[in-house]
Amino acid sequence: MTSQLTYPDWIAVDWGTSNLRVWAMTSDGEVLARNGSEHGMSDLAPDEFEVTLLSHIAPWLGRDTTPVIACGMVGSRQGWAEAPYRAVPTTPLGQSHAAPCKDSRIAMHILPGLKQERSADVMRGEETQIAGYLADAPDFDGILCLPGTHTKWAHISAGEVVSFQTFMTGELFDLLGRDSVLRHSIGEGSALDQEAFAGAIADTISRPEAVATQLFKIRAVDLLHGADPAVSRARLSGVLMGLELAAARPYWLGQPVALIGTPALNTLYKKALMAQGVEPSVHDADATTLRGLTAAYNELTC
Amino acid sequence: MTSQLTYPDWIAVDWGTSNLRVWAMTSDGEVLARNGSEHGMSDLAPDEFEVTLLSHIAPWLGRDTTPVIACGMVGSRQGWAEAPYRAVPTTPLGQSHAAPCKDSRIAMHILPGLKQERSADVMRGEETQIAGYLADAPDFDGILCLPGTHTKWAHISAGEVVSFQTFMTGELFDLLGRDSVLRHSIGEGSALDQEAFAGAIADTISRPEAVATQLFKIRAVDLLHGADPAVSRARLSGVLMGLELAAARPYWLGQPVALIGTPALNTLYKKALMAQGVEPSVHDADATTLRGLTAAYNELTC
Repeated sequence: MTSQLTYPDWIAVDWGTSNLRVWAMTSDGEVLARNGSEHGMSDLAPDEFEVTLLSHIAPWLGRDTTPVIACGMVGSRQGWAEAPYRAVPTTPLGQSHAAPCKDSRIAMHILPGLKQERSADVMRGEETQIAGYLADAPDFDGILCLPGTHTKWAHISAGEVVSFQTFMTGELFDLLGRDSVLRHSIGEGSALDQEAFAGAIADTISRPEAVATQLFKIRAVDLLHGADPAVSRARLSGVLMGLELAAARPYWLGQPVALIGTPALNTLYKKALMAQGVEPSVHDADATTLRGLTAAYNELTC
Repeated sequence: MTSQLTYPDWIAVDWGTSNLRVWAMTSDGEVLARNGSEHGMSDLAPDEFEVTLLSHIAPWLGRDTTPVIACGMVGSRQGWAEAPYRAVPTTPLGQSHAAPCKDSRIAMHILPGLKQERSADVMRGEETQIAGYLADAPDFDGILCLPGTHTKWAHISAGEVVSFQTFMTGELFDLLGRDSVLRHSIGEGSALDQEAFAGAIADTISRPEAVATQLFKIRAVDLLHGADPAVSRARLSGVLMGLELAAARPYWLGQPVALIGTPALNTLYKKALMAQGVEPSVHDADATTLRGLTAAYNELTC
């Protein structure tokens, strides 16, 4: 087999708690190849970081040193090398931290996360998505919502992250749906009854403390009357989403909102927000991450 | 070894999802012996129920048939024999259901749980504790709070359970403390910082929707400033307890409240309630369960 191999100018890496994703990139932001696995940081010992990364990118490496730009938990204290949090208000993209590598074919640059001292909060990885969004919309003034296991709401103004807040909604849904008594009613599918979802959101926004009673009620309704798992699942999702929207109201009320997430989560959050009279724009998290890593590469080579 | 063996007149059984407890009883309510294990209903297949019970009570059985009075999940649809829920408002103690036994040395009587159609809810086991409490305080008019994995608040009037509501506070605490990202901050101890506990309750009662932001903040404060696990654990416990108290306010506000729980949970709930100006009386759950089963035995033999 003969093939004209084009070595990438740099390699983009998004390395979180539970996933590793890598892209072979040209200097002008074109994707030559991609790879990924579930070798997240939480599964690996420190001496496995470099060998794990190399196993994903080895075919892309030539004789020269290739710059690698990485974001996510790879830069945490327990990660490859700590890239200390930068305090908001600040631009989303900070100077990358050089991390030690044994293999001279790569030069590792890790992007720092953001921290908020007043109303303590932290993010690692989402700041790169925010940078990616702002690379294409530098004048954006409003709210970015980044749905995920730990959803982030960020107030953006004049190119800076002014403040942000984290919600464990996704993790709560997973824990309650998989491990609590509610699992018997929710089953293992992913379908959501739309009417039950909207109703639970509305109920919880109007009376947030009721979340404490609504949870067991999902099980009780099923025990007494039988309930479609898609309805029970939608109630759980809606109750938790309603609680998040009630607490995040100072963010979204009367503001332009942009969603940056997976297609499934974007759809869910868009439905919930539109019921509150907010029409968010919708953006793909993968593309935005890559745009942010590209912006970081461009700063590195300036 | 010679010993004068007194066979019990009846056997009391509390058989829940995760525990089995049995008592050898005299007809006037004296405890001759007790036994127990973690052979809860959820671990057993239907053909294991009788043999499991017998393995706990065999030394107490003579030639005659001994009545066994049981409460808890043993009476659920997936239990030994279904004792269908009785609808509130009603007295806590319903007629027991005879369950089939292969061994003629026992006659099995299972107590039914309670259900609430309006604002769907169910209980199994707590109704027997309520009956036990009312056996000693037949004129009680007020609120019973039964803390546990699924805490129940019940409005009692004229000897009946008028309404009740279930809160998953205990299960949420266990899931979040053991399996979520918060586990890194909470550790495996059980100590609670009292000031942090009271502060988190007060914050959450005054602004219940903030529970959605307070959870991740427990982790963020620890990451940014370091936090004693006893403080982080107290914050989690206080946030969840505050949410429950906010939603249960129609129950406890201006009402006499009696707590029926383990010593540890009674102490926790009493502290939380006293900070709201409510001074509950405190009662041991085990003793109350046994009192309720005794009341059921007395009705059976009338």
